[in-house]
Amino acid sequence: MLTDIEIAQQTKMTPITEIAASLGIREEELEPYGRFKAKLNDSLYNRLKDRKDGKLILVTAINPTPAGEGKTTTTAGLGEAMAKIGKNAVIALREPSLGPVFGVKGGAAGGGYAQVVPMEDINLHFTGDMHALTSANNLLCAMLDNHMQQGNELRIDQRRVLIKRCLDMNDRALRNVVVGLGGKMNGIPREDGFIITVASEVMAILCLAADSSDLKERLGNILVAYNLDGEPVYAKDLKAEGAMAALLRDAINPNLVQTLEGTPVIMHGGPFANIAHGCNSVRATRLALKLADYCITEAGFGSDLGAEKFFDIKCRLAGLRPNAVVVVATARALKYNGGVPKAETGNENLEALKKGIVNLGAHIQNMRKYGVPVVVAINRFDSDTDAELAYIEQYCKENGADFALSEVFAKGGEGGMELARKVCAAAEQPSDFHPIYAGDLPVREKIATIAKEIYGADGVTYTAQAEKALKEIAALGGDALPVCIAKTQYSLSDNAALLGRPAGFQITIRDLRLSNGAGFVVAYAGDIMTMPGLPKRPAAERIDVDASGKISGLF
Amino acid sequence: MLTDIEIAQQTKMTPITEIAASLGIREEELEPYGRFKAKLNDSLYNRLKDRKDGKLILVTAINPTPAGEGKTTTTAGLGEAMAKIGKNAVIALREPSLGPVFGVKGGAAGGGYAQVVPMEDINLHFTGDMHALTSANNLLCAMLDNHMQQGNELRIDQRRVLIKRCLDMNDRALRNVVVGLGGKMNGIPREDGFIITVASEVMAILCLAADSSDLKERLGNILVAYNLDGEPVYAKDLKAEGAMAALLRDAINPNLVQTLEGTPVIMHGGPFANIAHGCNSVRATRLALKLADYCITEAGFGSDLGAEKFFDIKCRLAGLRPNAVVVVATARALKYNGGVPKAETGNENLEALKKGIVNLGAHIQNMRKYGVPVVVAINRFDSDTDAELAYIEQYCKENGADFALSEVFAKGGEGGMELARKVCAAAEQPSDFHPIYAGDLPVREKIATIAKEIYGADGVTYTAQAEKALKEIAALGGDALPVCIAKTQYSLSDNAALLGRPAGFQITIRDLRLSNGAGFVVAYAGDIMTMPGLPKRPAAERIDVDASGKISGLF
Repeated sequence: MLTDIEIAQQTKMTPITEIAASLGIREEELEPYGRFKAKLNDSLYNRLKDRKDGKLILVTAINPTPAGEGKTTTTAGLGEAMAKIGKNAVIALREPSLGPVFGVKGGAAGGGYAQVVPMEDINLHFTGDMHALTSANNLLCAMLDNHMQQGNELRIDQRRVLIKRCLDMNDRALRNVVVGLGGKMNGIPREDGFIITVASEVMAILCLAADSSDLKERLGNILVAYNLDGEPVYAKDLKAEGAMAALLRDAINPNLVQTLEGTPVIMHGGPFANIAHGCNSVRATRLALKLADYCITEAGFGSDLGAEKFFDIKCRLAGLRPNAVVVVATARALKYNGGVPKAETGNENLEALKKGIVNLGAHIQNMRKYGVPVVVAINRFDSDTDAELAYIEQYCKENGADFALSEVFAKGGEGGMELARKVCAAAEQPSDFHPIYAGDLPVREKIATIAKEIYGADGVTYTAQAEKALKEIAALGGDALPVCIAKTQYSLSDNAALLGRPAGFQITIRDLRLSNGAGFVVAYAGDIMTMPGLPKRPAAERIDVDASGKISGLF
Repeated sequence: MLTDIEIAQQTKMTPITEIAASLGIREEELEPYGRFKAKLNDSLYNRLKDRKDGKLILVTAINPTPAGEGKTTTTAGLGEAMAKIGKNAVIALREPSLGPVFGVKGGAAGGGYAQVVPMEDINLHFTGDMHALTSANNLLCAMLDNHMQQGNELRIDQRRVLIKRCLDMNDRALRNVVVGLGGKMNGIPREDGFIITVASEVMAILCLAADSSDLKERLGNILVAYNLDGEPVYAKDLKAEGAMAALLRDAINPNLVQTLEGTPVIMHGGPFANIAHGCNSVRATRLALKLADYCITEAGFGSDLGAEKFFDIKCRLAGLRPNAVVVVATARALKYNGGVPKAETGNENLEALKKGIVNLGAHIQNMRKYGVPVVVAINRFDSDTDAELAYIEQYCKENGADFALSEVFAKGGEGGMELARKVCAAAEQPSDFHPIYAGDLPVREKIATIAKEIYGADGVTYTAQAEKALKEIAALGGDALPVCIAKTQYSLSDNAALLGRPAGFQITIRDLRLSNGAGFVVAYAGDIMTMPGLPKRPAAERIDVDASGKISGLF
């Protein structure tokens, strides 16, 4: 078997101008970045805005396991398969972050014969969106520290600065730092830390902004600190939002790329799926809905984090109505959920499968609570047995979901035709989409609803710190906003060790934070890492480029 | 008078594909980044490499003053003027850094009617080169800290780490920091600091690399730290150079843009002119020499820092032979050098002019020591009087330099025709170019030569720290390398307050540092700021973008 990068490099890509032309995009609506990447101008959406939307298909998954699910691979392959069955589709995806590329993960643009290309570009700098976000965030931080240094008119409390600098890098040594050392000319000493760019509020804002005016307003509304009287200080108080928006002028425009089989992909934005909402930009999704009969998109992690936020935050804020949801799972991951160690998930084990499939059951039932038809896609491995697959199929049908095997990793679009047909059929069913909670409930009630309905918890416990934060945030108008729960992705509960379908547990909220610019309240259920580290042998050690510019070591 | 950005925005640019076609560049040799920027592929240089070089013209200046000289403006205008007198020219320039854009300076791509466009793009993210450099540098730093965290096989001494993280941002609070706080899982605590990206060795390397193989080798040779036995640790010991080179795969290719009048500009790289050599990339200059009869390029600060390094580092390492040098000055700046406060430099004052013109005299004589014909360009202001200009002209001729007025700020190329003619004539003269010191002299002798011949110093004093560093660097092979003196740009001496032509002074070297990848030894004559700060009212507060994407507040 070839590696992902080998498959990607041996594929002849279609010039991006041709991909664009196939969608009816005019030359002046496209800004090429090299031959195989482009940005799509505002003028395109403006021209199409009265066109009828296509069907919106969300791809989500069970809780991630070390056995691997292949959500992005399934998304890319499903898009390709649509063409094989005579439908037109545009895929809307998140952009990968550089940090994990150099850490454990290697690339993040699908795999096998279901990839988005040019994969090296996408996994490295792409069209520079991450860098623009890094600059915008760090300009805000520099302006804040400079304000304190230059007389501190706003009386910012250096002990209560809420924003952090960011880098698109896995760099644990920057998690906790002290800045401003070295005497009077070198700033005000204070505790600080860096986060990875995709964890920044600026990233979440880019992904939720309707247009550049909305972007600037949201940037200005970022809560950056409290002053010495405990009053909020916003980015607009620092007059930072104009320059930040100028830095994001191009980054706000969605990027056009393609799959290995030439299916158009709009790839734009990539916020964390715990402390942010984990979906590609609203602008990318809206554009995809105008450009094709089917927009196939993805949310982060399992459906308890990713799909919940897609529905309750993104769809609510952007007025989107999903028509079908695909839940990706593998037989191996279900056996892992049933207690089998990763190394043994390749062996037939119906008992473990039966024990672990309740995780899939919970995700199906959760998705149905939103009123959207569900199709389960089993990403097929050679080790899967007929008995196992038959059992999963039967289970899905009993739980109200359709079922399809997906072999897109090995076969590209050809391997996803059954899935594509099932998805189209599901999308023809009436969708009665509705968020899981009402927008006007207090934050506490919103959290209680998600914990009960989605996580299956008995209740929610708040630490003293969280109780204090709840009050502070309510005073700043936070009860009007949706909630973004930052929780482990590995379990439906807030305990990563509880696989399957945990019951009889409480969710503990230890703190909350107002992402006032993005427009949601983050509730922390456990410690969430916002700056990853590198492993002992980082992928970076193996990444190389030869004299001809050919990159190796991404996978 | 319109502002720079207003002038730039009302100019209709030529599509970059047409600019490229006018130079005989083939479609496949060009990677467009939007409609008005492009990168030039390796295949272009490879096709042209046996073509005869054009003439190489360096634009430099007297010591900078607050009165302003307009070196980049003169360079852009000279290039435009070449077309007006029927010559073909390509301009080779440095890329601006984001930091100063948000600080005091605003834009940095020329001014008035002699600008490089698209100015907003150039002053913001351009084609992403700065961001790629930031990522490559910070990946190296993350890998180093990670190595120490994960067992420290190389026994790196955490007290002797030489590389610093960087951001393309003016952010004084990051000058001195402590990283790795927060306990065992969060790194090894140590003193650290951030520099601005243009001050990084990675930037200097990009600018001196002949090709991507050379780039990777130089990256691997960066001296990152010493181990506990005092032995050197290089980037290649961390296996970082492959991934760093992969991050720079596109950044190593020169960028093509244009002046307001459509003169081609190759803009690539922008290292500091004190702790690095301050010139655009070798690859950009080489390419410009192949593409046109005249390559007009620029070096940083005054000729004592910029031109000296251009000649002694860049031309030496790249085998370039300059044909003429333009020294830019203004009557106002010469009066400032004669002791007149900035506010009064607009008044006629022949006495002050006579007193201050010795600064220009020193720069002319210094340039002549390199065996290159000199033309003085006086960047004309309305306040200049005939008597003042006549005096300067006479002085230049007596000192062996030709003279021309430049009015390119107000008139574009039309205002530089006299200068263009003088430059062409100078470039026809025989050039007997030779560096000021022999490459095989010990570092101490090299520094002594520059101090005496260029700065006019009586001698060089070394601190105890510098003496120690000299020995250490000699032991690592540093005597084979050219020297890069980091000194104030405001005086020929190492004391910023000494204007005109100081005499009877010593240069004090307080420390040295081996830029082993770039291939030079940095000698510090005074404190050099490698991370600027923002002023009380940063330019960022005025920068904005409207709903149509039009940016304002750059100037």
